[in-house]
Amino acid sequence: MLTGVQVVLAGGDARQLEVIRRLTELDAAVVLVGFDRLETPFSGVVKADWTPETLRQADALVLPPVGTEDDGTISAVFTEDVLKMTEDHLAQLPKHCKIYCGMAKPYLRRLCEKYRIELVELFERDDVAIYNSIPTAEGAVMMAIQHTDITIHGSRCMVLGLGRTGLTLARTLQALGAKVKAGVRREEAFARAFEMGFEPFYVADLARQAGNVDLLFNTIPNMIVTAQVIAELPLRAVIIDLASKPGGTDFRFAEKRGIKALLAPGLPGIVAPKTAGRIIAGSLAQIILEDIRQRGSTP
Amino acid sequence: MLTGVQVVLAGGDARQLEVIRRLTELDAAVVLVGFDRLETPFSGVVKADWTPETLRQADALVLPPVGTEDDGTISAVFTEDVLKMTEDHLAQLPKHCKIYCGMAKPYLRRLCEKYRIELVELFERDDVAIYNSIPTAEGAVMMAIQHTDITIHGSRCMVLGLGRTGLTLARTLQALGAKVKAGVRREEAFARAFEMGFEPFYVADLARQAGNVDLLFNTIPNMIVTAQVIAELPLRAVIIDLASKPGGTDFRFAEKRGIKALLAPGLPGIVAPKTAGRIIAGSLAQIILEDIRQRGSTP
Repeated sequence: MLTGVQVVLAGGDARQLEVIRRLTELDAAVVLVGFDRLETPFSGVVKADWTPETLRQADALVLPPVGTEDDGTISAVFTEDVLKMTEDHLAQLPKHCKIYCGMAKPYLRRLCEKYRIELVELFERDDVAIYNSIPTAEGAVMMAIQHTDITIHGSRCMVLGLGRTGLTLARTLQALGAKVKAGVRREEAFARAFEMGFEPFYVADLARQAGNVDLLFNTIPNMIVTAQVIAELPLRAVIIDLASKPGGTDFRFAEKRGIKALLAPGLPGIVAPKTAGRIIAGSLAQIILEDIRQRGSTP
Repeated sequence: MLTGVQVVLAGGDARQLEVIRRLTELDAAVVLVGFDRLETPFSGVVKADWTPETLRQADALVLPPVGTEDDGTISAVFTEDVLKMTEDHLAQLPKHCKIYCGMAKPYLRRLCEKYRIELVELFERDDVAIYNSIPTAEGAVMMAIQHTDITIHGSRCMVLGLGRTGLTLARTLQALGAKVKAGVRREEAFARAFEMGFEPFYVADLARQAGNVDLLFNTIPNMIVTAQVIAELPLRAVIIDLASKPGGTDFRFAEKRGIKALLAPGLPGIVAPKTAGRIIAGSLAQIILEDIRQRGSTP
């Protein structure tokens, strides 16, 4: 339980509602900033303004999945107010308080370093990335159905990268009846792809493998779907790039060749905000519990 | 091969392009009516007007999947002309010529009976219905992802009817990680549902089974998702009705209770027109080949 632990939630969207629900279930003292238009009542929850003083008693500060923008703005859909993370805010945080978000931008990282506040990036964690791969794969499936005139069943799919997201996606496409080629970099991933019944190849061979692909899904966050690769794709192919912005596709060349290419980062929050919220809430609650426990045992 | 066999195609959408392709591959003499805006060139294909005379030499007349409307109109997206099936047209058809469509409305059925022209409804065939269940299931999956804030993975899905479409859909949802309850009418379907790892129940018990459902898919073309059933559903539930119009759902009551209910017939032509066209083309070519062969052997 989190009895007596003060958690400040600043900003965010519908996903944070699951976080609030979970934290109140665990009896945390929840302080909400940037939720003045929120109508769902949560018992035992306090609302406050985004002033440095609000943070003085915080044991944990929870930001939205994207953390802050590069100018310090904290996105907050439940308020008209603009929330901005400043040095004044950081300065007021107790030293034991950690900041939790999905992924942090350089602005937030720099501030945390300067004030020696520990920053926890949930989306870096393997478990969270694997849970998030489920809504990501479903979002990719939805886009594939929307943007082709064929079924996924029976189609030739290529998945680049067999990491936390790629593995889920390849398995999902296979379950829907697609023929799945998996482009990998490591021998271990090659062996796993073979074991799972995908057709594995090394991405060094990508251009030679691209000739007969209906759907190309990329999860590798480097420029990998190059002009050379795109030149080998059939014109009917559709590229769906799931890697973080700016993706790993030469979008300019794809457009020039008339091949449909879509960048789709952040699918969990779009296609399944409730599930995405539950993933964040579950992981966050567990981490805060552990952090509090450790703090209790080290006087 | 269909060498020397004249096939008249009247009207239709992108799906008919696959039919034209397949028939020309088989060397049929293809006559297109209502395709004047079609830009894709097909070699050996002749265009004609929708006059009764055009039908005089026809060995087969292929209409769009919906056949004709109830006033005789034949839908045709590749022309501005209005094509209408009249008695004059039927009167000109050779007696051995059959009319092929997906599903026929009463207007077309009556005309064919009157002029003793055999009508072949492809969508009635088990094989075609099973092939079509693939794009139908993918369309249903797409709608489920679009209209819920949770993932299909881990959701509680209910599929009503374990026929040609229901079985494919239940299997697809299960493959995506959903918990699937299957509402059936026959003992045999109950046993099959059990064997496949679904949770089977008899639809007579439907209201009692509806309490904890996230997604309800109906494939039964009778009023089955009644007000009584809808009253038992949780408010978050989404109903996707795949049965032919008007579906099997009390849409009025669903709206009154604030439960999202969507009628989605004809998904194959919407989400995967190319695949849907290939299904029609493959089946049609096979049937026409058989019909011609039989006619050849009975002098």
